[in-house]
Amino acid sequence: MDQVTIFDSTLRDGAQGGGVAFSIEDKLAVTRLLDQLGVQYIEAGNPGSNAKELEFFCRVSQLSLKHAELVAFGSTCRKGLSPEEDPNLASLLKADTAVCAIFGKCWKFHVDAVLETTAQENFRMIRESCRYLKARGRKVIFDAEHFFDGYLEDPVFAKQAIRSALEGGADVICLCDTNGGVFPKTAARIVREVLSWLPVPLGVHFHNDMGMATANSLIAVQEGANQVQGTFLGFGERCGNANLSTIIPLLQLKLGISCIPQENLQTLAQCARELAAFANVEVPAGLPFVGKNAFSHKAGMHADGVLKSPRSFEHIDPFLVGNVRRFPASEISGRAVILAKIKEIFPSVPVNSEEVQAVLEEIKELERQGYQFEGADASFEVLVRKRLAPFPPFFRLLYYHIYTDFVPRQSATASATVKVEVGEQVQLMAAEGNGPVNALDRALRKALELFYPVLSHVKLTDYKVRVLDGKNATGSTVRVLITSSDGKNTFTTVGVSRDVVAASWKALADSMEYLLLNQ
Amino acid sequence: MDQVTIFDSTLRDGAQGGGVAFSIEDKLAVTRLLDQLGVQYIEAGNPGSNAKELEFFCRVSQLSLKHAELVAFGSTCRKGLSPEEDPNLASLLKADTAVCAIFGKCWKFHVDAVLETTAQENFRMIRESCRYLKARGRKVIFDAEHFFDGYLEDPVFAKQAIRSALEGGADVICLCDTNGGVFPKTAARIVREVLSWLPVPLGVHFHNDMGMATANSLIAVQEGANQVQGTFLGFGERCGNANLSTIIPLLQLKLGISCIPQENLQTLAQCARELAAFANVEVPAGLPFVGKNAFSHKAGMHADGVLKSPRSFEHIDPFLVGNVRRFPASEISGRAVILAKIKEIFPSVPVNSEEVQAVLEEIKELERQGYQFEGADASFEVLVRKRLAPFPPFFRLLYYHIYTDFVPRQSATASATVKVEVGEQVQLMAAEGNGPVNALDRALRKALELFYPVLSHVKLTDYKVRVLDGKNATGSTVRVLITSSDGKNTFTTVGVSRDVVAASWKALADSMEYLLLNQ
Repeated sequence: MDQVTIFDSTLRDGAQGGGVAFSIEDKLAVTRLLDQLGVQYIEAGNPGSNAKELEFFCRVSQLSLKHAELVAFGSTCRKGLSPEEDPNLASLLKADTAVCAIFGKCWKFHVDAVLETTAQENFRMIRESCRYLKARGRKVIFDAEHFFDGYLEDPVFAKQAIRSALEGGADVICLCDTNGGVFPKTAARIVREVLSWLPVPLGVHFHNDMGMATANSLIAVQEGANQVQGTFLGFGERCGNANLSTIIPLLQLKLGISCIPQENLQTLAQCARELAAFANVEVPAGLPFVGKNAFSHKAGMHADGVLKSPRSFEHIDPFLVGNVRRFPASEISGRAVILAKIKEIFPSVPVNSEEVQAVLEEIKELERQGYQFEGADASFEVLVRKRLAPFPPFFRLLYYHIYTDFVPRQSATASATVKVEVGEQVQLMAAEGNGPVNALDRALRKALELFYPVLSHVKLTDYKVRVLDGKNATGSTVRVLITSSDGKNTFTTVGVSRDVVAASWKALADSMEYLLLNQ
Repeated sequence: MDQVTIFDSTLRDGAQGGGVAFSIEDKLAVTRLLDQLGVQYIEAGNPGSNAKELEFFCRVSQLSLKHAELVAFGSTCRKGLSPEEDPNLASLLKADTAVCAIFGKCWKFHVDAVLETTAQENFRMIRESCRYLKARGRKVIFDAEHFFDGYLEDPVFAKQAIRSALEGGADVICLCDTNGGVFPKTAARIVREVLSWLPVPLGVHFHNDMGMATANSLIAVQEGANQVQGTFLGFGERCGNANLSTIIPLLQLKLGISCIPQENLQTLAQCARELAAFANVEVPAGLPFVGKNAFSHKAGMHADGVLKSPRSFEHIDPFLVGNVRRFPASEISGRAVILAKIKEIFPSVPVNSEEVQAVLEEIKELERQGYQFEGADASFEVLVRKRLAPFPPFFRLLYYHIYTDFVPRQSATASATVKVEVGEQVQLMAAEGNGPVNALDRALRKALELFYPVLSHVKLTDYKVRVLDGKNATGSTVRVLITSSDGKNTFTTVGVSRDVVAASWKALADSMEYLLLNQ
């Protein structure tokens, strides 16, 4: 075994995870991200579940992907229906992907108690659905739902379900531990037994209800499985799915099994942060390989050891997965990363100069307040340029006032007044909006466009709010991220405050300055 | 093997985890909690590390524990020192616990590169330190640091380290995967080999840097290990330690191996929440067995299956670990889930009645607008009660006005005026806040507390904002989730609007109504 294909279901099984919801824009962005990382299959949704999913498949087909094939997910035809009559299969075809994944029942108990039909009808549904999709040119991955539980209880039935898929022409069989209750030794034995007679490639799909999904996936590969299904940050039903951000580096670095282009492994931690941002969550700090603490050495004895020889308390070099070593007590590591980022903007800056040291201190202080420049490179650049190559300000805020008015059964209105100074001139401008932030945004734009017409080409494309310390409830500190585009480039700015309007103002002002600086 | 001892290191190795810090009071409370749960050993700290630790050991000795023995943790004596001269060993004795755990080097590379001494001196330090503590009446657990890495590189050296501890009289040998880089198959083989000649009980201590700590711990027990070390929520250096909240139910429910009193297993989820509260973190929602989502069924098909037979999508009954089944209402879940949730509130409601059908339609429409009742059960209940058992409104908003004022270099201020009607009376109230939402929250509370003093016991404990479709930028629809607590119960409400203030208003108003309804 020197190659394993990665089947990512972040946008399908991942979206079934608690608290996870992707907009269509998010899904398109995640698709691009996973394609850049180099996974082979992206299971992007269930087109039969609602109209939004089908709209997404229509839009995603316009992306030109480099590595990945899109997969549409659905069930076999329903009992009593032929594939031609089945609306789910029709939706799968409408999604117009080269690959379809369909699941069918492999556990007799499920056929009796949930599906409430006969074994023969279940096998027919599997066989005919695979055949129907194959006849229409699709590559078919058969997800053998509950295979492990089913095989343990009635192996003859479970095998017959797979044989039905093979009779229908399925290209890949994927054994699913849908309830997450199988132990590694059992998983290994069952994978071995199925591989002994299976004529097509074998995939595995584990859930993490016992904290075993990673171990099970790796053991299955060691037994000869050819495909691993999972989700990128482990999102998924209940306790989530096998976590690909852990499994990919384990396969590649520990077992020497190729699954994404080797050079992309160094983008893994960054990919995790970006994906988390689209899902509006934080990457769990202790997540293997990609978490902020994955190579953080808190105990003094550990930090000392690592400074003598990193191998003493690190199982791999964090550089290999694009993460960094951290010493939280001393913050030594952070500085190296920030310096490297400053060097990207000013390659020849002397790193020991007073100015650079002052910028490092300022960034440390801002991070303490809740700023995070990861993913907000434009704000970082504006800050660094202001300090290391000062420029006359493009504008200066004198004040803003916002009035928000709400009377039930009338639409809410907000109006903002902004007073800015540009060179010698002062401009007072007002605008209305959906809410206070929208009104402020419009008023600022109207004022500045009089001086800088180029700003009329800039569009805000994304707006995110993260509450940093929810314990202070509505008085909490919030971090606002604003993504803007001038049609060619997209860039993100950040603002932090205990007032969502003030945090938004900072991110808005940075976005205008960044664009004007890069004219 | 029908019994395994649980060695909890939450207060020691757990406290070395990023973002974890316990006060002395916290540590005392956690000790009581773990004792109630019934673990056998509580490794409560490293008395040599600082004065606070020693003070804690002094105070903790006054607790009368029912199940657990306290363990003090430290290193062997230092190179060149006799045990009598060594300050760390002196601190261990001062902690005055019946059990001491001391770690020594088992990896030749560490002795060369970190300790910088000879193999013979390393073995002497281990042997004499164990002997010294044994002679003073302590039970000694020897933590064989980096044993797995050391054994793989130089098995003769690693074994000799353990033999030295045995010569010193160590009662238990614990094999540590300090760097978290060992695979289950390798762990199993090494445990098997050591057990073949070890004359005392064997413990294991795994870290989670590859997401394998749970699997490794279980496999070690299956090979015959007698003790599992871990931390209760998986806290610990880097990616954390083996998670006992996962391992305990796996041992007890899946392998039939007793490790805590059987009846205490039903307190597991509650114990996790209390421990998390002392550590000032949330229990991760997807954590096996104890997380809020561990038995939460989001996809409609899963929910339908569970309603027919729980076994269809649950690997154990959540009741066994004190958790509950949840059906978060969401865009992927079907009518069956929403009906089941309505039935929880009104058990005898006729599901086909016009009123219920109207509620279903209303919820679908709200979800289309961006509402998500998953995780916002209180808003769901308020809505259902309003429709199916109408009650006179507790209050009615007449209007709010908010004025937000910002002048650079002065602090931002926001002031809100709220006019509400309660019964026949009208109340106008105003308040200031950090931002518009905080000001509105304060003004509303001030107004309503005059009529409903009980509201003064309610605290907002969390506030979340999610931008639903960032492409409309600052004019996007936002979803606000507010979590409130009355000291006993915690509940979450939701509001959606294109104005963050209006969305917050809806969630705030629901939280007040929910509390008043449940008086």
